[in-house]
Amino acid sequence: MTKKIAVIVAGGSGQRMGVSTPKQFLKIHGKPLLWHTIKAFLDAFEDIHLIIVLPETHLETGKDITKYFSSPNIHFTTGGITRFHSVKNGLLLLDTTNSIVFVHDGVRCMVSPDLIKRCYNQAVEQGSAIPAVAATDSIRIVSDNGVSEVADRTLVKIIQTPQTFRADILLPAFEQEYNEAFTDEATVVEAYGGKVLLIEGEYNNLKITRPIDLLIAEKILEERGDTRKDSYFTF
Amino acid sequence: MTKKIAVIVAGGSGQRMGVSTPKQFLKIHGKPLLWHTIKAFLDAFEDIHLIIVLPETHLETGKDITKYFSSPNIHFTTGGITRFHSVKNGLLLLDTTNSIVFVHDGVRCMVSPDLIKRCYNQAVEQGSAIPAVAATDSIRIVSDNGVSEVADRTLVKIIQTPQTFRADILLPAFEQEYNEAFTDEATVVEAYGGKVLLIEGEYNNLKITRPIDLLIAEKILEERGDTRKDSYFTF
Repeated sequence: MTKKIAVIVAGGSGQRMGVSTPKQFLKIHGKPLLWHTIKAFLDAFEDIHLIIVLPETHLETGKDITKYFSSPNIHFTTGGITRFHSVKNGLLLLDTTNSIVFVHDGVRCMVSPDLIKRCYNQAVEQGSAIPAVAATDSIRIVSDNGVSEVADRTLVKIIQTPQTFRADILLPAFEQEYNEAFTDEATVVEAYGGKVLLIEGEYNNLKITRPIDLLIAEKILEERGDTRKDSYFTF
Repeated sequence: MTKKIAVIVAGGSGQRMGVSTPKQFLKIHGKPLLWHTIKAFLDAFEDIHLIIVLPETHLETGKDITKYFSSPNIHFTTGGITRFHSVKNGLLLLDTTNSIVFVHDGVRCMVSPDLIKRCYNQAVEQGSAIPAVAATDSIRIVSDNGVSEVADRTLVKIIQTPQTFRADILLPAFEQEYNEAFTDEATVVEAYGGKVLLIEGEYNNLKITRPIDLLIAEKILEERGDTRKDSYFTF
């Protein structure tokens, strides 16, 4: 089996949540968002290496969260000034030769082990796997002058993470100079001339962005039976 | 004040929910989705005329729901074979002269009275108001050959309802022959040469499509303090 490395990007400051705690540390059923995210990856692959990218001010908080997992393969680094720089910091931490690399938003805590495994399988076979779901609503593209045009909804895909790649495709792309068009890893790989392949994502694999998303996550994890209210997170 | 007419499209059969009850009749806090939707419009404008478009098989269920509202201005009709035909049936039911017409998905039960009022004001002043929110996630547009291209996220808008128009703009557009590009009212008006203007929508104004959406709606309405579990809906 190919080595598995997941870079979990949790460097955000959570301004949109209107709270001072970065959102990756907000709790659902007594456990931080980031805990749920890490658990999904460890549930998918016991032997996975995790690289958690944190804000410098919250490195210790991150370590506190992970000490309840028995995996010896959890590593830490600090974030850069953009997502590109944060991911690059993470990628530099381990030898990625011959591995499959997942890059995942720390606040997508509802990702399922099944999706992680499917991404892995596709990346092994075809080099990349970018989870995407169909749009439920109509989509319009606004032009510069404020006019909008409807997009063919069957062709619109909402992109999620983990964006998953064979290391030999992802790593060279991260040698490029930073460009503000690099909004995710797929755009970085494409700018380097690589192709990215979509894979069916999960409707529940939401990015926790606004307060209401926390309530949604709570409900979804409740539905999965994950409601144990542990008290060991005291921060 | 201009006359207000809302066509509430509730003709769906709810196949995606995996239940036999059409989703507009599923209950949140003891009351059908459609009840919550109707309440939002009556809360926005006491004197609004509501035209509820229902499946023929559920006309009586719809009437049962609305008998608990004291408004004398609730009307019913049955759906057509597409959304276009359903809305057209609704529009034919009343004299729309000089009115502002809202067309709303019956299953968007979390619409706020505030959004309804803002749509009204913009439609009075500028002819139309289509609620839209920014995309939280990256968006890709898939080409016919399976390749995808990232869209500029700042230009992507997710479209909601109530799609709101001055009647003299909406009604003539509905005289056109049906075209399968008519996926909502905005596309109908545009095909007739009209312009549509977006307005800031609401992140919570979700279309209830999948089972998880029901849980989300429950949480959102709970947050609003709307948790009274009435027992008068016995179906």
